[in-house]
Amino acid sequence: MTEQWFNEELHPWYRKSLKVLEVLEDEQTDFQHLQIVRTEFFGKALILDGIIQLTERDNMGYHEMITHVPMLAVDNPETVLIVGGGDGGTLQQVLKHASVKKVVMSELDRRVVELSRKHFTEFAPAFDDPRFELVIEDAFTYMQRNQAVFDVIISDTTDPIGMAERLFSEEFYELMKHALKPGGAVSTQCEQMYFDTQLIKDILAVAKRLTQNPAYYYSLVPTYPGGGIGFMYMSDTPWSNGLGKTYPQGLNYLNPEMHRAAFALPEFFRREL
Amino acid sequence: MTEQWFNEELHPWYRKSLKVLEVLEDEQTDFQHLQIVRTEFFGKALILDGIIQLTERDNMGYHEMITHVPMLAVDNPETVLIVGGGDGGTLQQVLKHASVKKVVMSELDRRVVELSRKHFTEFAPAFDDPRFELVIEDAFTYMQRNQAVFDVIISDTTDPIGMAERLFSEEFYELMKHALKPGGAVSTQCEQMYFDTQLIKDILAVAKRLTQNPAYYYSLVPTYPGGGIGFMYMSDTPWSNGLGKTYPQGLNYLNPEMHRAAFALPEFFRREL
Repeated sequence: MTEQWFNEELHPWYRKSLKVLEVLEDEQTDFQHLQIVRTEFFGKALILDGIIQLTERDNMGYHEMITHVPMLAVDNPETVLIVGGGDGGTLQQVLKHASVKKVVMSELDRRVVELSRKHFTEFAPAFDDPRFELVIEDAFTYMQRNQAVFDVIISDTTDPIGMAERLFSEEFYELMKHALKPGGAVSTQCEQMYFDTQLIKDILAVAKRLTQNPAYYYSLVPTYPGGGIGFMYMSDTPWSNGLGKTYPQGLNYLNPEMHRAAFALPEFFRREL
Repeated sequence: MTEQWFNEELHPWYRKSLKVLEVLEDEQTDFQHLQIVRTEFFGKALILDGIIQLTERDNMGYHEMITHVPMLAVDNPETVLIVGGGDGGTLQQVLKHASVKKVVMSELDRRVVELSRKHFTEFAPAFDDPRFELVIEDAFTYMQRNQAVFDVIISDTTDPIGMAERLFSEEFYELMKHALKPGGAVSTQCEQMYFDTQLIKDILAVAKRLTQNPAYYYSLVPTYPGGGIGFMYMSDTPWSNGLGKTYPQGLNYLNPEMHRAAFALPEFFRREL
């Protein structure tokens, strides 16, 4: 039998492939092509429209960093909005904070939640938490109705292609800002510093206009393009307000050294910003 | 015309491909299969035995970090040995330190030097520096003859496959230790923390036996497997002795924040070590 490989073709000049042992789901939902496969070495992987969203082995770099950096920066966050994030990985991390009273997930595609819950059993218990509320609705309309409500907003989305492109727009960042309580913090999936430099510069300019202490930070995720991904932190509260606080238990990526290190940027990129 | 891609197959479960615009060199040397290609986005790339050694766009993460971390840790390093490194990228970085009086490169394959010098024009002037000496000789025999000679030794080698496997052996680390002057520092190419955890643990155990202040550190290199590579720092002098010193001019990766950040390790890996 020939080997089966999943090939990711997000960039016209860079490709990555994971060896697939078994295809667990392969479905065209109302919104996207959803695949869940079992890979060699990386465990199960969620793939949307041909792009790796997470693997069991290395998702901690993504989920811990997009979640705990804003959650630690804000003192005792109680209300949290997750935009997208239907796989449950971010939700699981948010619920590790004892101060949390309510987490809303605004996810457009119900099938991402249903199939992730079935296969990513480590995240699945989070969906049963009484503090969790699932809203199958476009985040734009949800946030327009909910202003100054959230201590933390986490935009855990796909790449800016097709319907997700507007999640990287000025309008979307303004909506997040208005949905935040004063002093609240936003984090967003914000692409790869070597590959998406101009996009990151543009979003940082927006974040600077909207808040006093935005910053770009970075995490290692071997199965993402270029082996890592960055995040935009946007808040009037400095991210460093979270340094030295008590960290949630059971983390596999974040520690105090990595918290600080995530905001150190290579010199070529620091100059660009 | 069909597109041409270079496919790297270093791991049985992970592959990476770069789009090739032009093959500049393709030669079987006495030691290895050497290719230099022009890629889209990453510029020229050096490939040995099917594994990417460097690209013009992202090599700075590798060459600046393998070089300046030990060079800054030691006060006023004068004599430096580069094991391998025939492409000249490390040599170019070493020569940025004004204290350096002599740099020996012990490279087995003359063709790597000759063809890199022809194509990697940014590194090429380094080979003409009067402080530089090229020794086409096995590093094992060279170091056996040269004990307590070097302030800094940089092992800038291929992966531990075939003839390079012994460069990751206890014997090799002992030879480097004996070739160092007291208080001198070693850095070695030391693989990927997600993919090569056990190898790194084994080498750190050796480094701990031989010196007082070894440490593992890390750099972002998108075209390497998993998007990054680590290094073993081995010395009686702590790496942090280099923090706050004046950095060489013209760096594109290293700055004081990245210097410290390189030694922060994800929690799962810190626990392993």
